Amino acid sequence: MDLNSDLGEGFGAWRMGDDEQMLRIVTSANVACGFHAGDPAGILQTLRLAAAQGVAIGAHVAYPDLVGFGRRNMSPSSRELVADVIYQIGALQGLARAAGTCVRYVKPHGALYNTIAHDRRQAEDVIEAMLAVDPQLVLMGLAGSPLLGWAQARGLRTVAEIFADRAYTAQGTLVPRGTPGAVLHDAQQAAQRMLDWVHTGCLPSIDGQRIRLQADSICVHGDSPAAVAMAQQLRQQLQAAGVALQPFAPLPGELAAKPADAAAAAAAPIAGGAA
Amino acid sequence: MDLNSDLGEGFGAWRMGDDEQMLRIVTSANVACGFHAGDPAGILQTLRLAAAQGVAIGAHVAYPDLVGFGRRNMSPSSRELVADVIYQIGALQGLARAAGTCVRYVKPHGALYNTIAHDRRQAEDVIEAMLAVDPQLVLMGLAGSPLLGWAQARGLRTVAEIFADRAYTAQGTLVPRGTPGAVLHDAQQAAQRMLDWVHTGCLPSIDGQRIRLQADSICVHGDSPAAVAMAQQLRQQLQAAGVALQPFAPLPGELAAKPADAAAAAAAPIAGGAA
Amino acid sequence: MDLNSDLGEGFGAWRMGDDEQMLRIVTSANVACGFHAGDPAGILQTLRLAAAQGVAIGAHVAYPDLVGFGRRNMSPSSRELVADVIYQIGALQGLARAAGTCVRYVKPHGALYNTIAHDRRQAEDVIEAMLAVDPQLVLMGLAGSPLLGWAQARGLRTVAEIFADRAYTAQGTLVPRGTPGAVLHDAQQAAQRMLDWVHTGCLPSIDGQRIRLQADSICVHGDSPAAVAMAQQLRQQLQAAGVALQPFAPLPGELAAKPADAAAAAAAPIAGGAA
Amino acid sequence: MDLNSDLGEGFGAWRMGDDEQMLRIVTSANVACGFHAGDPAGILQTLRLAAAQGVAIGAHVAYPDLVGFGRRNMSPSSRELVADVIYQIGALQGLARAAGTCVRYVKPHGALYNTIAHDRRQAEDVIEAMLAVDPQLVLMGLAGSPLLGWAQARGLRTVAEIFADRAYTAQGTLVPRGTPGAVLHDAQQAAQRMLDWVHTGCLPSIDGQRIRLQADSICVHGDSPAAVAMAQQLRQQLQAAGVALQPFAPLPGELAAKPADAAAAAAAPIAGGAA
Repeated sequence: MDLNSDLGEGFGAWRMGDDEQMLRIVTSANVACGFHAGDPAGILQTLRLAAAQGVAIGAHVAYPDLVGFGRRNMSPSSRELVADVIYQIGALQGLARAAGTCVRYVKPHGALYNTIAHDRRQAEDVIEAMLAVDPQLVLMGLAGSPLLGWAQARGLRTVAEIFADRAYTAQGTLVPRGTPGAVLHDAQQAAQRMLDWVHTGCLPSIDGQRIRLQADSICVHGDSPAAVAMAQQLRQQLQAAGVALQPFAPLPGELAAKPADAAAAAAAPIAGGAA
Repeated sequence: MDLNSDLGEGFGAWRMGDDEQMLRIVTSANVACGFHAGDPAGILQTLRLAAAQGVAIGAHVAYPDLVGFGRRNMSPSSRELVADVIYQIGALQGLARAAGTCVRYVKPHGALYNTIAHDRRQAEDVIEAMLAVDPQLVLMGLAGSPLLGWAQARGLRTVAEIFADRAYTAQGTLVPRGTPGAVLHDAQQAAQRMLDWVHTGCLPSIDGQRIRLQADSICVHGDSPAAVAMAQQLRQQLQAAGVALQPFAPLPGELAAKPADAAAAAAAPIAGGAA
Repeated sequence: MDLNSDLGEGFGAWRMGDDEQMLRIVTSANVACGFHAGDPAGILQTLRLAAAQGVAIGAHVAYPDLVGFGRRNMSPSSRELVADVIYQIGALQGLARAAGTCVRYVKPHGALYNTIAHDRRQAEDVIEAMLAVDPQLVLMGLAGSPLLGWAQARGLRTVAEIFADRAYTAQGTLVPRGTPGAVLHDAQQAAQRMLDWVHTGCLPSIDGQRIRLQADSICVHGDSPAAVAMAQQLRQQLQAAGVALQPFAPLPGELAAKPADAAAAAAAPIAGGAA
Repeated sequence: MDLNSDLGEGFGAWRMGDDEQMLRIVTSANVACGFHAGDPAGILQTLRLAAAQGVAIGAHVAYPDLVGFGRRNMSPSSRELVADVIYQIGALQGLARAAGTCVRYVKPHGALYNTIAHDRRQAEDVIEAMLAVDPQLVLMGLAGSPLLGWAQARGLRTVAEIFADRAYTAQGTLVPRGTPGAVLHDAQQAAQRMLDWVHTGCLPSIDGQRIRLQADSICVHGDSPAAVAMAQQLRQQLQAAGVALQPFAPLPGELAAKPADAAAAAAAPIAGGAA
């Protein structure tokens, strides 16, 4: 199982979260690319810490909206969105190379994440950008969302994620923030839910039903001390239960060493979240 | 001989220069990377046009100063400047890959260009950034400036450039803008100066002396119809005089095919502008 | 009758339109405030030219989206939008004071203009911002849009505008850009339409019906030589037909001199575009 | 005596300092204007809290450098710097009006603060901007710096400030950050120094001499819990010693009520820091 978190989200003098602590907990880091957060020097520092911990790097691409932290809907044209995503991936690839690591996957952020989970046009823009930069990149998206199928149809590998601290509807979608109970604050409860899910593939929905969710990564947050503590507890309980934690994305070196597998992987996406 | 020009310098709805026209004239394009100019969609369009014309791509990296067009001195720390340059090169590499081409060289822009021509600390920051992203990148700098020697000492290949439309002092430095006669406006005169220089290696200084300048690229501007006409005339006269115009930078594919030469080139920089 | 145009829309080294020329044609200038266009030095220059020509100043407030020129929809919260609009008006007021003039009205730009024409929540945010800064400010909006009524209900004066170069539907709304015939390119035809409208209060819709539109200002564009020529021709023909051209908004000094009228104006909005 | 602090320095999702706590301690708030920090919604919130506490507002104007937090030297032209300062003051005035308060003074931030303490050209640019917006604005600057005299010579009132947590040289200048002992971390020691200074007008320099500094405001920081605690202790000890804490700047309403005094104040600057 993979644990991912949003990192590198400071900007200049402003800090957010405790990247150093979180990089000891997670196996994959969604690193900001400068459009919603992340200045080059801060990103590079996070990438170096991630490289030292063997954490896999994803490009946390976003709308160009620093003041809104990428959380506000925007309406870019395809021409704009495709190029914006390529630019961000490329910038992070450059910094990752300088840090002795590489970008293995792309996880859109905030409003872009939510939009492409269901908006086909913007989803295809992100997919086209990834294919244009590097078709080996993996797209991380919401478990159960049509996005994953759209990406697979274009030949991209995908990985589905679920959220440790979010409640789900009976339809398998996230309960919107703002709804009572949408966000879990009890670290013990969150860890127990994830343990159950790892063993059974099922979660209780907010109205008490059992829902089945297929995913290869669990998203944890690190933007407050309580969030870090929850992530830490989840990691410990998963390990205590014998669940191996490791990046979902094979290293490019591993791909190079196994060309046949790589081709197979490209043809048969590793995650079936869109089913 | 190589002809280079600054391109991709629009931003969103704002246009600057006529990239399409200039890409039929020059052999190397210094493409803005978003810090002084250039939005991703506009950059990508310029890169596609450049790829179609077989024009070599350089990263026109700059201080983060859109409103000042990168022309104002700034005092970034080394930590900031190294990361800013890596970020810009990486972003352009991503877009270049999407356009079916690649980044072959780096030419700092505006205030950064002028500063690193003589400021060793910032010069070493730019050099370190290039080495961290791709040691095969060539650094383009002012003919005669110490920057070129500093870069060669770190193992980078360099290329020196002279300016078709700028007057030089007897010491071989540019006459500062604002000084009467600093900028040449007569296309015929500028072309004749370059022809003389190509044949003799020498230029008349502003006070009438002959100065020797070693360079492998001529910089022309394209930000006004008059500038485009001057570049066009220069190109025609050089060709009429039998001077072959081609990118100074070998394609990476050519490097890959000639590994021994590539190694030699890395050891023996192609430009001796720092002499 | 008032003629208005969007001005001050350069940014740093990038120019847009010919403000000096347009300020000899129009009577009201919608001046960019830095969020979609306009750097402080450029704005100040435009304001000085406007002051010299006796042109009335409006704050052309926008979403914070330089690279998208404020033309992309965004979803700011009310907390954000109210403060963004206040900030922009205040900044322009400061610059206007330095230029010896003042801000008399507010005309939202681009996507914000289109959104608040029908989206009540964002419309009320803009209205609240204006009331918080200066309740004497006049809101300029699309003739016939509900926005004007919403603003009047809160005690703001409003002015309705029509577009000289845009086709209208039979319902009195703008034919969307992209539809064939949506934008008029013939200066003579545009001027004739406006002359007819000034005399009859009616325009032909795109499908040949007569529609009645009440407005106090005509919007002309100046972002190309052809646009400037069209504006020039419109001005000449209106004057030749005996239509007096003057700013719709009384000067604050005039208000101060006529307190009774000012109070009456505040109670009885000058434009009834929402009827 | 006046206590001032830098506030409103968050940006969008990023927080900095505890404005609410600090506004219970200080009597004057230097509020960010969006160029080095501060988004409109966050600034407005800080202004409302300040208004509720009766804290005087200053415009904390800066170079346009969000990612560098305004701490990096830049070389704006006079045309740019004058307009940038006007823009920022105007924006803050607009937001202050909406918060039911007003801007009484200007305190440049970071690199601009340090530069204009001795660079006459940039100092005159800031002075010109203030005069253009509102000649009643007071300029806050470094005690003992020539800036204060330059401003007085142009007719601006000034106020000199000293720093509670910084060591001084025997010449009365700040010991540069980075020098051992440059920053005081002991709250009790800092408070004792300020008490001594309030009573004697003198401070010990870093090398043990007594230096005389004339100032009307003490700058305290609030960007860490330790800084807030130091500010709190300073306030308590000053009050225990019978020092009245109040804003240095009279309210505009007070000025209006005392026109003779206001004129006198304008003629005879209240602070003699430049002596």
